[in-house]
Amino acid sequence: MLAWNHVFASRASRMRASEIRELLKLLDQPDIISFAGGIPDPKLFPAEAFKQAYAETLNGGEAMAALQYSVSEGYAPLRQWLQQEMGRIGIECEPDNIFITSGSQQALDYLGKLFLSPDDTALVTWPTYLGALQAFNAYEPHYDQLGFANRTPESYRSLAQSRGGDVKFAYLSSDFANPTGQTVSLEERERVLSLARELDIPVIEDAAYQHLRFEGAPLSSILALDIARSGTIEETRTIYCGSFSKTLAPGLRVGYVVAAKPVIQKLVLMKQAADLHSSTINQMAIAHVAERHFQAQIEKIRTTYMARRDAMLDALSRHMPVGARWTKPEGGMFIWVTLPDGVDGADLLQNAISMEKVAFVPGQAFFADKSGTNTLRLSYSCANETAIEEGIARLGRLVKRHTQNAA
Amino acid sequence: MLAWNHVFASRASRMRASEIRELLKLLDQPDIISFAGGIPDPKLFPAEAFKQAYAETLNGGEAMAALQYSVSEGYAPLRQWLQQEMGRIGIECEPDNIFITSGSQQALDYLGKLFLSPDDTALVTWPTYLGALQAFNAYEPHYDQLGFANRTPESYRSLAQSRGGDVKFAYLSSDFANPTGQTVSLEERERVLSLARELDIPVIEDAAYQHLRFEGAPLSSILALDIARSGTIEETRTIYCGSFSKTLAPGLRVGYVVAAKPVIQKLVLMKQAADLHSSTINQMAIAHVAERHFQAQIEKIRTTYMARRDAMLDALSRHMPVGARWTKPEGGMFIWVTLPDGVDGADLLQNAISMEKVAFVPGQAFFADKSGTNTLRLSYSCANETAIEEGIARLGRLVKRHTQNAA
Repeated sequence: MLAWNHVFASRASRMRASEIRELLKLLDQPDIISFAGGIPDPKLFPAEAFKQAYAETLNGGEAMAALQYSVSEGYAPLRQWLQQEMGRIGIECEPDNIFITSGSQQALDYLGKLFLSPDDTALVTWPTYLGALQAFNAYEPHYDQLGFANRTPESYRSLAQSRGGDVKFAYLSSDFANPTGQTVSLEERERVLSLARELDIPVIEDAAYQHLRFEGAPLSSILALDIARSGTIEETRTIYCGSFSKTLAPGLRVGYVVAAKPVIQKLVLMKQAADLHSSTINQMAIAHVAERHFQAQIEKIRTTYMARRDAMLDALSRHMPVGARWTKPEGGMFIWVTLPDGVDGADLLQNAISMEKVAFVPGQAFFADKSGTNTLRLSYSCANETAIEEGIARLGRLVKRHTQNAA
Repeated sequence: MLAWNHVFASRASRMRASEIRELLKLLDQPDIISFAGGIPDPKLFPAEAFKQAYAETLNGGEAMAALQYSVSEGYAPLRQWLQQEMGRIGIECEPDNIFITSGSQQALDYLGKLFLSPDDTALVTWPTYLGALQAFNAYEPHYDQLGFANRTPESYRSLAQSRGGDVKFAYLSSDFANPTGQTVSLEERERVLSLARELDIPVIEDAAYQHLRFEGAPLSSILALDIARSGTIEETRTIYCGSFSKTLAPGLRVGYVVAAKPVIQKLVLMKQAADLHSSTINQMAIAHVAERHFQAQIEKIRTTYMARRDAMLDALSRHMPVGARWTKPEGGMFIWVTLPDGVDGADLLQNAISMEKVAFVPGQAFFADKSGTNTLRLSYSCANETAIEEGIARLGRLVKRHTQNAA
């Protein structure tokens, strides 16, 4: 038998199984209340609208185009719809500033591929989106912590150089981040932009959850702030990654990148070489549904998720012991819990599944340095209020026991 | 403005625009007869079958699953259908030997990513599929010529090592290759397997056109020969890449890889990090159409393409000057022309478009060493017999003029 490990590239050693994906399998056990998956509630999908979209797309002159190869940059009417949508949030751009991806996960992979040589450094928050670490890992970077204060540009640069590369970008999720649910303040956004300018690097803004704001005034995206500073998108350094996965449906795999043209042009060439283009028919179906139903759809999911967030925050306040803390997100799908001192999230999960039949994601995986052992991520997107109350009661009991044992 | 080229990874310098893609734009000019595109005739797509497939998929209990995230390895019923299909061509395997990709282009990208570190060597034929070179280029390899005789394993190894890496795989298209239309003989297949064993490397078998055989007995795929040698797929070194793009439709972006499990497991992890999974709904639609219509569909396209191949071979024999040679493919979409001495394919194309209104792809782009300037690729898949006769007459006139000028 071929010694496969001898012939794999060195990057393959960093491709390892995802804790989250393994945990998703728990969703299939009916007696477990799961707050683990970071996925939308499928009952909220606009299934009727998609049914109509596919039927119309395959119903006449468009059918041949829908089933054929298409251009790597994406379906023109979808890019035009996105241009208008971007304009409404202060991002003035042209269709040529927009690139369609197979979900925003692909955008992260491509941006890793575009910027990272082995031993370069990516700046990420502690914690950050696990999928971003997985995408970037294939390109063998180091990580450094993107805080919003205290570190000088020179300290980032000298650490990166001591590791044999350069700082190549700062990556962050601006609104209702996975895993924390937190939103980056306007002041912090400006500070990231200033840091990026001093380091002369791009900012990758992950906006996957941006449309899921329940309350409070929307904050300008980092790209919008960058355009306000720079005068035009062509002078910006921010690469905005959006997705239809949390608003319309993830199963079609349609996301998008908005950035200055030199970046978009490289991404288009990269896609041509890597998978030619995202599914033609799915881009047409997304355009069809977005044009007709986008606003109504996001209002529907906001209402549902907000009620679940409220139920979870309420249950946490009643069931969690003293010493536990958690975030109060203004949108999105996640609450981030910091456990009392000495309680380990991974240990807790073992007992949570076997004894209390409740699931979540231990926080450690979201830290590039594998710290954060006393944290966990809860998702309220797929559980109704009754299940949330019961599941948090179970979790609270368990955290109390672990807290007493740790004391 | 950010100096983007300073912050791009070194691999980005090898991402360049594709000659073929630029040429595809010519298809939009109605007075040009194009033999340039390597795409299926959209009039042959089973549009009604797809319409029914999407309607049924979105019509009941399956709708939520169709629109939701799904597993990275692919939709189980599609993998099961492929398992049976593979069994029919001598490839005994389990569903866990099958991995669904977003088209077979993605398989090539992932295999490049899995095996190639910078300065490693990939063995490819001269000429080879341009898209394979583009996919592999992102991982910064060197190329060496996969002939089917004459070269010793040691000569491959020593050249690769002198370039700072190792030989990592042999890539070839076994049936009706793009661009030549030629089929690798059984003896040559065995020889590639033996070479790969001596070098202890995998063989990547591109089978994108395998179902498009018009005549002659099918040859065992390299993977089937490898299984026959090794006893079980788990002991093989051949990675088989298939596609629904040439049989059902390319716009859904569904392809597949069949290989030993250590390879499949790495590809699954890679996909999880790179785009999570291929479109759920499209995999379901492909499974639906494949289960009901696959055999009838390939018979339909074989009949159509065979008539067009016959028309093109006949026209070439009447219109081409002495000194031109071309392949006689037993299937697929392409005929490969070697021009008379001194005639340059790229020069010819300039005049072909401006003077004769006929298009093709100059052959040079398909050579890793940029040789083959006196070759060109003709595709007969999208032109009817009348257009083929007229287009080849135009091309023949032009080649005659260029031959006289070269003499």
